[in-house]
Amino acid sequence: MSKQELPVLNSECCAPLVDEPVGEEEAAELARVFKALGDPIRVRLLSLIGAHEGGRVTGEGVCVCDLTGAFAVTAPTISHHLKVLREAGLIDSQRRGTWVYYWIIPATLKRLTGVLALPETLTTGKR
Amino acid sequence: MSKQELPVLNSECCAPLVDEPVGEEEAAELARVFKALGDPIRVRLLSLIGAHEGGRVTGEGVCVCDLTGAFAVTAPTISHHLKVLREAGLIDSQRRGTWVYYWIIPATLKRLTGVLALPETLTTGKR
Repeated sequence: MSKQELPVLNSECCAPLVDEPVGEEEAAELARVFKALGDPIRVRLLSLIGAHEGGRVTGEGVCVCDLTGAFAVTAPTISHHLKVLREAGLIDSQRRGTWVYYWIIPATLKRLTGVLALPETLTTGKR
Repeated sequence: MSKQELPVLNSECCAPLVDEPVGEEEAAELARVFKALGDPIRVRLLSLIGAHEGGRVTGEGVCVCDLTGAFAVTAPTISHHLKVLREAGLIDSQRRGTWVYYWIIPATLKRLTGVLALPETLTTGKR
């Protein structure tokens, strides 16, 4: 795991946004994570990492060398996008020799699904 | 409801991102919605609308006049942010006389929670 302190969403967060108005601080935290997902390459990278067996295991990860081939952009561009995802707390990484390995941070994804959740009456179309 | 065609996420979408690598087209659609949420004011607006009883009812809505007071920015700025949310398919609106009324689009939120969902083994920390 990287030694750098990762910014993570406040553990007090995660009540559904539609339950009660979100505070300014939590809104800023959430917006930062959503912004990191606001790019097609980053959405695909997160998906590639999470869909890879190693990318689902904290401390194991998927080699960046297995990610770059899926994209028509340069390796430095991919590295930049991975850094954005990491700084948003969506993935973490570890360098091992030549390569860096990446894995998803399930807690962050779980918090996003929590804040976006709807009461059942809304998902079924009932009031 | 507005007569303008709303861009909505492809109904074929919504498999969890971590189940299998997302395609380029779906990634672009999702990134557009996440980008709309990548701003603290827009996160708060979506929350205010969804937390308001009228904002949960399609075709009813919450008056923009009840939203602007929560922010230190001008009404035109709020209108701009509401437009971004609407163009991303997160909310819809209707003008009635002087005011515009906004409500959330549950299907879009539901799709986002679907694509961000994790297998249970990951949320419990088991492999």
